Amino acid sequence: MAHIKVPEGVPGIRSLVMFRPETGVYLYDLAQVLLRGESTLLPAERELIAAYVSHRNNCIFCRNSHAAAARCLYNEEAFIVDDVLQDMQQSAVSDKLKALLTIAGKVQVSGKSVTKEDIELAKRLGADDREIHDTVLIAATFCMFNRYVDGLASFTPVQEEAYVDMGKRMAEKGYVLPAQKV
Amino acid sequence: MAHIKVPEGVPGIRSLVMFRPETGVYLYDLAQVLLRGESTLLPAERELIAAYVSHRNNCIFCRNSHAAAARCLYNEEAFIVDDVLQDMQQSAVSDKLKALLTIAGKVQVSGKSVTKEDIELAKRLGADDREIHDTVLIAATFCMFNRYVDGLASFTPVQEEAYVDMGKRMAEKGYVLPAQKV
Repeated sequence: MAHIKVPEGVPGIRSLVMFRPETGVYLYDLAQVLLRGESTLLPAERELIAAYVSHRNNCIFCRNSHAAAARCLYNEEAFIVDDVLQDMQQSAVSDKLKALLTIAGKVQVSGKSVTKEDIELAKRLGADDREIHDTVLIAATFCMFNRYVDGLASFTPVQEEAYVDMGKRMAEKGYVLPAQKV
Repeated sequence: MAHIKVPEGVPGIRSLVMFRPETGVYLYDLAQVLLRGESTLLPAERELIAAYVSHRNNCIFCRNSHAAAARCLYNEEAFIVDDVLQDMQQSAVSDKLKALLTIAGKVQVSGKSVTKEDIELAKRLGADDREIHDTVLIAATFCMFNRYVDGLASFTPVQEEAYVDMGKRMAEKGYVLPAQKV
């Protein structure tokens, strides 16, 4: 049970933004522009960064839902998502995306652990400033979401099926604020 | 020097939101509603939570600026801010605020480290669901801001004076998006 009185049976962050839509609206807007807005990183790649950081933070709800969204978006290459979560460096993603995921993984630990060398490697492999900026902010944002969801002990479904449907909705519709306070 | 090309001489998060106002607008809106919006927690108390979490994340820019804002808002009791940063449990803040700061400190480590007992103690000392929610979200939000600011190595002034003026502006004007991309 969640630490505060949120709508029952509503999973994860959705129950929290229904409790407090005044903050929820900006959280959803931020997720939408970061994960679906105009970018040279694919939505699939950005969802993968989100799932990777959530996995490292051991946030089951965010990892499962964003991994499911990434699988939908990667489509026939959905296996990439599980490969990255298992062993990123051995996965089939590009060297550029590996360099960005490395930066995201360091942000998960602490902003200060990102080095000049990490940034230079990403640039050498083709990442531009905007891609580096967005990678750092996606990683930082999921360090927030993960703590928000787990810090209030919001409902985390255990059935895999719940995440399949959720990921499909996230992949197709993006981040739309749920119905207001009940 | 910052890891990406942001306006020079502009400190901390301001330089980053000038680089990318499309995400910056939601970050500032979120800070404004959390730290200045309608709440039974005083703006001084909310700035203190922000400074406390930033201190624990060793983010000098966020700690110094939000501590300066909190000192302005605490006014004649500004010493409270430094006492909390030095030894929260021994400081003069209320037992209720100590319980909320304890929850914030746990969120800084991981959402999962917040226990039922932490929440029950805060409730017994008078905290309601909305105050607990906002404490967790402020703490989580600063885990994002701290990582964003340090992960991109944004400019961190070393002179104390810069933060006095900054804190005054934050206390008086709140969180207003700076001028757009240059």
